[in-house]
Amino acid sequence: MTSHTKLSGGSHPPRARLDRIFHSLEGALGTGMVLSAKEVLETYAEDDSGFGAFQPDFVIRARNTQDVSIILKEASREGVPVVPRGGGTGRVGGALAVYGGIVLSLEKMNRITAIENENFLARVEPGMILEKFHQSIEEAGLFYPPDPSSLDSCSVGGNVACNAGGPRALKYGVTSNYVLGAEFVLPDGTILKTGRSTVKGGAGYELHKLIVGSEGTLGVITGITFKLVAKPSHIETALITFPTARAALQSSQDIMKSGILPRSLEFMDALSLAAARTKVPRQLPETAGGCLLVELDGSSADTLLEEMGRVAEICDKHGSGEALVAQDEAQRRDLWTVRREVAPALREMHPCRVSEDIVVPRAALAGIVDELQTTATKHGIKIAAFGHSGDGNIHVTVLYDEPTREAADAACTDTLRLAVKHGGTVAGEHGTGIQKVGALALEQSAELLEFQRGLKKYFDPAGIMNPGKVVAI
Amino acid sequence: MTSHTKLSGGSHPPRARLDRIFHSLEGALGTGMVLSAKEVLETYAEDDSGFGAFQPDFVIRARNTQDVSIILKEASREGVPVVPRGGGTGRVGGALAVYGGIVLSLEKMNRITAIENENFLARVEPGMILEKFHQSIEEAGLFYPPDPSSLDSCSVGGNVACNAGGPRALKYGVTSNYVLGAEFVLPDGTILKTGRSTVKGGAGYELHKLIVGSEGTLGVITGITFKLVAKPSHIETALITFPTARAALQSSQDIMKSGILPRSLEFMDALSLAAARTKVPRQLPETAGGCLLVELDGSSADTLLEEMGRVAEICDKHGSGEALVAQDEAQRRDLWTVRREVAPALREMHPCRVSEDIVVPRAALAGIVDELQTTATKHGIKIAAFGHSGDGNIHVTVLYDEPTREAADAACTDTLRLAVKHGGTVAGEHGTGIQKVGALALEQSAELLEFQRGLKKYFDPAGIMNPGKVVAI
Repeated sequence: MTSHTKLSGGSHPPRARLDRIFHSLEGALGTGMVLSAKEVLETYAEDDSGFGAFQPDFVIRARNTQDVSIILKEASREGVPVVPRGGGTGRVGGALAVYGGIVLSLEKMNRITAIENENFLARVEPGMILEKFHQSIEEAGLFYPPDPSSLDSCSVGGNVACNAGGPRALKYGVTSNYVLGAEFVLPDGTILKTGRSTVKGGAGYELHKLIVGSEGTLGVITGITFKLVAKPSHIETALITFPTARAALQSSQDIMKSGILPRSLEFMDALSLAAARTKVPRQLPETAGGCLLVELDGSSADTLLEEMGRVAEICDKHGSGEALVAQDEAQRRDLWTVRREVAPALREMHPCRVSEDIVVPRAALAGIVDELQTTATKHGIKIAAFGHSGDGNIHVTVLYDEPTREAADAACTDTLRLAVKHGGTVAGEHGTGIQKVGALALEQSAELLEFQRGLKKYFDPAGIMNPGKVVAI
Repeated sequence: MTSHTKLSGGSHPPRARLDRIFHSLEGALGTGMVLSAKEVLETYAEDDSGFGAFQPDFVIRARNTQDVSIILKEASREGVPVVPRGGGTGRVGGALAVYGGIVLSLEKMNRITAIENENFLARVEPGMILEKFHQSIEEAGLFYPPDPSSLDSCSVGGNVACNAGGPRALKYGVTSNYVLGAEFVLPDGTILKTGRSTVKGGAGYELHKLIVGSEGTLGVITGITFKLVAKPSHIETALITFPTARAALQSSQDIMKSGILPRSLEFMDALSLAAARTKVPRQLPETAGGCLLVELDGSSADTLLEEMGRVAEICDKHGSGEALVAQDEAQRRDLWTVRREVAPALREMHPCRVSEDIVVPRAALAGIVDELQTTATKHGIKIAAFGHSGDGNIHVTVLYDEPTREAADAACTDTLRLAVKHGGTVAGEHGTGIQKVGALALEQSAELLEFQRGLKKYFDPAGIMNPGKVVAI
């Protein structure tokens, strides 16, 4: 955990209360529903943030919305923390039971309840795994764009909770662009249906939009109505190397200025490429200082070919080297493997690392990636940068050895300050969680933070919902 | 006003308080800033809803955010209503001072403060007229899609307040899709900057998303950061007539199912066409029972031509008649005039009319337009239907003579019930205002309404912000 992750906003409930809620929930939900075996608690103690293990007191795998309602109502009465959990793939510690209490897993609520082809929408339970959802939707000839890298194990409810993005967000937008409505359980157990089944509409407040990104701190999402779009019939993908990171980023910026809107425009710096090279059979030139993965989609193959030609010309002006253009789906997957393996490879090579997820206005990106290297040199550590350059969203991974932990923390703070200085934000597509609670003050005023804490209290007067996350109280 | 517009949620402040706030605001803002001349009050007494005149006690044309902050702070202290106002073009009575108090006009805060071409964003004050904003953005080679029909006189702040849409929303989405961040003054005078300058981001709660569509009931928007997109280089527009409304709507649905995504797909029924015919020189066949206006845009002329060919084939299968395809910009404007003149022509022909703005899942549309005619026959009145068929968003205009007012009200209620019965919503792109306050209960549960009233109270404990609108307290 970095220096930004000092815990605040809750406390571990006393044993007597835990015993009481165990009995009342067993009574209401049925024997065997409230799990407290050590191995179960351990399974739900960690997430993908690497922030360590926080063992809950109980784990409950909700079967339906009624279960969720009962659990929240009892927890509100007893003041016991409830931590909603999907796939546990979060990077900011949002699913960690930092004050114990109940981990409320939504994994069993994982059905698609409707796909309405003609209306371009789907209704789904929160525990549905994103990749399975993609498959079902595409089999129906439609398309659900958000594609965070954890798509084989993250849940759609988790995606909504942290407003997930992914490479295709460049053209298609993030999760919030696809949430038409939600079934949502308030901390007192009240079940609300917010939003609607239509793309347009404005009856009352846009409550469903506020629930997106609230990371389980305002209540629990138990159902989602997603907007879908038509499945694009053609895709073109190319991996293009550059002598320097700057040349890659300037090309990225020039592609965006050309009027072409790729569905993905991904950047990797030299360190990210070096990491990927350890995992991928494909040979990337050792000399590459930066790389872009460009993917276009649309309904006309000719248009895409013409656009990819223009992309190649733009990159050529910045001295691009080899360009690998996928000729079929297998090759397309191969090219993506380079990009997808960056994070796992960095993780394996550097057990000590902190991953920051910043966004800056696109024009500032090339300058910032240079400044990051200055930051790394200053603190005597290494920084890898990769991610969604088209969006200005870069995953900055600070790599360190145990003795340089303090230097890494300082580099993280510098990174976040850098993002804010250039008009950006400290949290991109991973959310706030416990990681960025302290860092919010770098970006937001004391008045805004205070107002959000009050808003949280309006939703959750008992303070049970995922305490310590987003705006810790 | 229909039966849905019973006023509730406020009261006219007593004279003593008004006198006090007049003096304190004159002191704080300067002499001559707080207007109370009869002709000024009358100018700001009505909006485009046709719900009548509600004279405020004062009108203040704010010069800047500080003015807004001072006004709200004083008004909160004195419990005097504040009604924010942009262009006054709202259709649901959102800008009416139904309990008197202060009309806070943002018309003088009308500057674009920044256009950042490379970052595809613009910063703008709320009083900026939309059409002027469009012009400035397009001159910069960029594009801001939302285009409600009042674009020559509505303000961008009003667009954000009611989450405006327009014909291009089909492809590009409504206003909320373009609001990255907002400067927002809370009713106690606190100035908050919410959201961000980047497309992606998730630090804290998505407060700016909640402010969109809140119609000045939670505070006052004093600045907006809009996302922009690349300006499409090619446009194709066609006006296609059909023997029946049903044939037009079935074609609309089949176009959407084909995978083609027009930027606009507009429908007019026979009555709407008859009205338009009185205003437009162009001859539309007298026999047409329905009509579609289809507009495609993109970066390739060839692709658009091919797609328009497919559109024509689809329409042909449903027995389409004449198709007028614009050959240049002037002809394109001519075709749009047919669509744009429907509402003004209906207004002139039928001084007694109520306009409802419903949305239904697209597949239900053809059936609903038929059911609307059954409703009209049942109540002995006329109903015209037109609007954004691609989105399922139809403007239902109930036409009546003074003696049939009750029948018209009943037909309106039937219309809203019909929308909800088919999974739709009672409020599309015009907002809730005072018109739909009562109708919300047709769509939303008592718990959800109560929760929204509490949310409003959290923002506005003194109850001064645009009382009687959205969720009347």
